[in-house]
Amino acid sequence: MEVSDLIARARDGQPRAVARLISMVENGSPRLREIMAELRTDRPHRARIIGLTGSPGVGKSTSTGMLVQAFRKRDKKVGVLAVDPSSPFTGGALLGDRVRMQDHACDPEVFIRSMASRGHLGGLSWATPQALRVLEAAGCEVILIETVGVGQAEVDIASLADTTVVLLAPGMGDGIQAAKAGILEIADVFVVNKADRDGAQATIRELRNMLALVERVWRPPIVPTVAYRGEGAEDVVNALDEHLAYLEESGELARRRQVRARDEIEAIALAALRSRFAHLHGDRRLDVLADRVLDGDLDPYTAADELMEAIG
Amino acid sequence: MEVSDLIARARDGQPRAVARLISMVENGSPRLREIMAELRTDRPHRARIIGLTGSPGVGKSTSTGMLVQAFRKRDKKVGVLAVDPSSPFTGGALLGDRVRMQDHACDPEVFIRSMASRGHLGGLSWATPQALRVLEAAGCEVILIETVGVGQAEVDIASLADTTVVLLAPGMGDGIQAAKAGILEIADVFVVNKADRDGAQATIRELRNMLALVERVWRPPIVPTVAYRGEGAEDVVNALDEHLAYLEESGELARRRQVRARDEIEAIALAALRSRFAHLHGDRRLDVLADRVLDGDLDPYTAADELMEAIG
Repeated sequence: MEVSDLIARARDGQPRAVARLISMVENGSPRLREIMAELRTDRPHRARIIGLTGSPGVGKSTSTGMLVQAFRKRDKKVGVLAVDPSSPFTGGALLGDRVRMQDHACDPEVFIRSMASRGHLGGLSWATPQALRVLEAAGCEVILIETVGVGQAEVDIASLADTTVVLLAPGMGDGIQAAKAGILEIADVFVVNKADRDGAQATIRELRNMLALVERVWRPPIVPTVAYRGEGAEDVVNALDEHLAYLEESGELARRRQVRARDEIEAIALAALRSRFAHLHGDRRLDVLADRVLDGDLDPYTAADELMEAIG
Repeated sequence: MEVSDLIARARDGQPRAVARLISMVENGSPRLREIMAELRTDRPHRARIIGLTGSPGVGKSTSTGMLVQAFRKRDKKVGVLAVDPSSPFTGGALLGDRVRMQDHACDPEVFIRSMASRGHLGGLSWATPQALRVLEAAGCEVILIETVGVGQAEVDIASLADTTVVLLAPGMGDGIQAAKAGILEIADVFVVNKADRDGAQATIRELRNMLALVERVWRPPIVPTVAYRGEGAEDVVNALDEHLAYLEESGELARRRQVRARDEIEAIALAALRSRFAHLHGDRRLDVLADRVLDGDLDPYTAADELMEAIG
């Protein structure tokens, strides 16, 4: 199928066309340039981008499902990107493949898509913005990006989303402590899921104490939920709305979007340079440099200089 | 102090000199090039690099401490790099700052260092190899890299280490399932810590079943431990030795080291290009491009072309 046909069908909201385009993003199709040029003026940045992150076991998928339902009640067209950096070696999955998302699998106003983040420099930062463009072109008004993560993935999601939700659950061991510095910086909204369990109040209290030590203009609210029963859904959406209002009033939304566009441009430029490394002079050149570094014949900085001269 | 003095002291095993040099790596000191040129021929690749990774709460630090002790018993000089990607926003910590490492804080044959992975493209892959060079110059024969992680950090550690140990613990919820694809690919040795707890056998069984589905030349052993009591330490070290023997016999060690050197050279080259983006024409140029992308006036690929022309 022609790219222009595919885009027309995606704009028309046909799930298979949306899925095909996102696969092309994931696989780094040579036609991406053409696709992105075509989508350039498509409802740019209409969608609210909401990131959800947290350690394994906190109930991310269930919470995502709960939020999809809440936004559907408000008649919003919703996109879900489940970026799963824990599967760096598996390819992309099909649209609607997530078991816990079954409820929405037949709703034409919900697009659900798993994306594997390639285990490579700039994988997530390179592919995700383009997948977001496809979902925006398909008319999504809210896009949820779900990611497993303590660590780099969290930072990445914070730079991709307008609002970042950090999920916690009681009884996750020293998870809060371990993740402390990171989550305090990136969370716009905290959700303490499984709030019907022992220890939920303690988790909320610990979080509140940690937050008291940080100075931030926006104070992240802490919202308890029981996602599998849908409890707290409205509270989360209200907290998200408040944060959006703050972003708009403070000018922070415009700033975040500019940073995001900068990151996207940089990621594409770096990916182009990487492929020059790999292809222009063939992989050989780099192998030879690597061997010389291993032999102690070159230091890595001089090797990098030679590499850059080689790609000119 | 002159760089050459600092290096002489580090080679002499003085912890403060080692700490200073690693700080310079972390902070991207302009003198790094000089330092790395100087270290070029310093016992290159003498050290065994062992990565330890796992979700928060599995007992990584305790297990690292246990392994330090086991290698000290064998009279090895040991380095520990605790790369903590969950604190992307905090700077480096002092040598020997890890509470649970107290036991070794006064041992002159153990270097312990926390490193914050900068929340940026290439942070870990750029800084860690250089920190390893410093530790090798200081005479470390075994270097343990400890990292929190499900996700990207795991992949990174696998590319930096000769042997990657994935830690699990019973009762971590759906952690294994969530992390499945990733950990099966990168683990050379599995350690099931807290093996005195309920569910340890079930975790081992689950892991064994998962492993049965994968075809790999090296079959990762599964070693139960109770790290806080030091139980299983010798079994882990034996498993590490077996893996090292396999790496050497199969030629895989040479291959891994070549890939590592390539990655290091690429990471330095990409970092240099990034700083050209940021500095050569000033940040302005990129801001203007970002605004044009946001306005739908440019697609991101064309913007990336313009950026690359600008740094030409």
